[in-house]
Amino acid sequence: MGTWAVIMAGGSGTRFWPASRLRRPKQLLPLVQGGESLLAATFRRISQRIDPSRVIVVTAAALAEATARELPALLPANLLAEPAPRNTAPCIGWATDVILARDPSAVVAVLPSDQHVTDDAGFAAAVERALAVAERRELATIGISPTRPDTGFGYIETAAAIADVEGAREVLRFVEKPDLARAKEYLASGRFLWNSGMFFFRASAMRAAIAAHLPELAQGLAGMTAANTGEVFPRLPSISIDYGVVERVGATAGNIGVVPGDFGWSDVGSWESTWELSDKDEKGNAAPRHAVLVDANGNLVRAQKMVALVGVSDLVVVETEDAILVMPRERAQDVRAVVDALKAQGRSELL
Amino acid sequence: MGTWAVIMAGGSGTRFWPASRLRRPKQLLPLVQGGESLLAATFRRISQRIDPSRVIVVTAAALAEATARELPALLPANLLAEPAPRNTAPCIGWATDVILARDPSAVVAVLPSDQHVTDDAGFAAAVERALAVAERRELATIGISPTRPDTGFGYIETAAAIADVEGAREVLRFVEKPDLARAKEYLASGRFLWNSGMFFFRASAMRAAIAAHLPELAQGLAGMTAANTGEVFPRLPSISIDYGVVERVGATAGNIGVVPGDFGWSDVGSWESTWELSDKDEKGNAAPRHAVLVDANGNLVRAQKMVALVGVSDLVVVETEDAILVMPRERAQDVRAVVDALKAQGRSELL
Repeated sequence: MGTWAVIMAGGSGTRFWPASRLRRPKQLLPLVQGGESLLAATFRRISQRIDPSRVIVVTAAALAEATARELPALLPANLLAEPAPRNTAPCIGWATDVILARDPSAVVAVLPSDQHVTDDAGFAAAVERALAVAERRELATIGISPTRPDTGFGYIETAAAIADVEGAREVLRFVEKPDLARAKEYLASGRFLWNSGMFFFRASAMRAAIAAHLPELAQGLAGMTAANTGEVFPRLPSISIDYGVVERVGATAGNIGVVPGDFGWSDVGSWESTWELSDKDEKGNAAPRHAVLVDANGNLVRAQKMVALVGVSDLVVVETEDAILVMPRERAQDVRAVVDALKAQGRSELL
Repeated sequence: MGTWAVIMAGGSGTRFWPASRLRRPKQLLPLVQGGESLLAATFRRISQRIDPSRVIVVTAAALAEATARELPALLPANLLAEPAPRNTAPCIGWATDVILARDPSAVVAVLPSDQHVTDDAGFAAAVERALAVAERRELATIGISPTRPDTGFGYIETAAAIADVEGAREVLRFVEKPDLARAKEYLASGRFLWNSGMFFFRASAMRAAIAAHLPELAQGLAGMTAANTGEVFPRLPSISIDYGVVERVGATAGNIGVVPGDFGWSDVGSWESTWELSDKDEKGNAAPRHAVLVDANGNLVRAQKMVALVGVSDLVVVETEDAILVMPRERAQDVRAVVDALKAQGRSELL
């Protein structure tokens, strides 16, 4: 049995405009510290456990070149370029088939490419346990121990402990993003974890689950070859692995196991997250050394040019080669409105 | 009798950083609308009344080239480059001597180069009256009708009307920048005007006044020739025309006349003034067309790059080729702190 990884790196996303663009999405950006992109960090992190020759990266055709450039250790044969975005079930189904063709007894770790982890050893230990659960159940996942009643994540309700794997429990149910009152209940109960989007499974079990729950996808994948991917893939049903497979597998009690994760995880959802994860000066500013800060507190500055802030607090100030964004950190989600305005104005060079 | 103008264009100033630099001071910047620098606007405005061949511009040696470039209609022989900054009395004394050598009966209008006027016709009318007063008195000035109890200006207290010149009055005294309580009294009294720094005089009268009140300066100027300016000028006493000459001439009642000015005058003292003087959208933003403004009010934006503001109010956001400034409009005076920090850090390329 070999252990494989699939990194899902096809996302676009607008929440890091002006740094993120259609051709330079979030996972390719060094959003936290040290100049390493989230994707490169994800690859590096999982490579400590799984040999790079068994790490598959799935991305969008338009991002294939940039993705390859970002991951010099990735084998060309392990880069899968989706001809069209079809959500996560076809992505994982395709990668599973590629792995099965090479290693019928593979166990697979599926990881999003755009998450941040501060404790690599804690991450590795959780992955180890999740892989152990995947050998015993249909599917395993890592659930993040919640630190606040966040309404931006799906939650996982846990049930009985799973013998032999430290900390692992059966999944009772997956719940959608809750409102604040429910999120507080979940946090208080101690039974809930955040859905991290990481999944672990025997490749054969995933193929069987897709056949059982998404037969149309299974048929499409069965007829797909290297030669016809460009025609077949875009016609696969567009559906998420969560909705199409995971929740349906999980409907039978005990099918899915979850390992709690407590390794400084963040989905780096906005410029606000970037500020939270960045090194800050004694006044809470995360800014380049060349910035001049006068009576400035709690600001995030990302810029090549020299930036001077005077008397401003809790702002995001981001400069890229062709644009500048200024907004309060607490409005970070609203950067979407800028992208929408640029779309409406037809200014595609800025998207 | 010929009418001449002297435009004082030697100022440096740091209040418009990052747009203003040692080699690109305020008067060379298009701080208000339409791409015209304050200096070019001053030259254009006075040229409507005084032939360009009789307009003298005094600037710093380091700015001579940029000044000449900015004023294509200025005669090369009319550009005086000060070898060192010696404040306004040597500046005006030198220009007066240059004019007297060409036209012994000249009447002279001295104008700062960095003021903004919205009503050119009103300005021309006030200049006409001030020149008329200059023929009747030792010295004339234009006092700006105050619109608020501003503590940033010197004030002029007026006395009896001067016959034959509409609106003109004798100057009772010049007063330094007052505190707010006094400024309010001045405004309420109706007798006070703001000192605009514009002066009008017969050239012979100014030479006589300098001889009487600043004999050391008079002697220095008398010994100065085209050949030795570089040695003599830097050793002239550094003193302002206000303190060295105007206040002393004004000590004798009736010597100085003042004409009230009400022509949309501003000394464009800070980015806040620039915002006040700029065209604004219905939300009070003065921003380039290419900016994207979402829930943004009362902001001043100057930038080449596309700028997006989300949820911010009353900010100054200025981008130049090598720097970006973000501060609240009401902190506009504190841009000085940035310049001081850059000096302390030895980052002279940004000064």
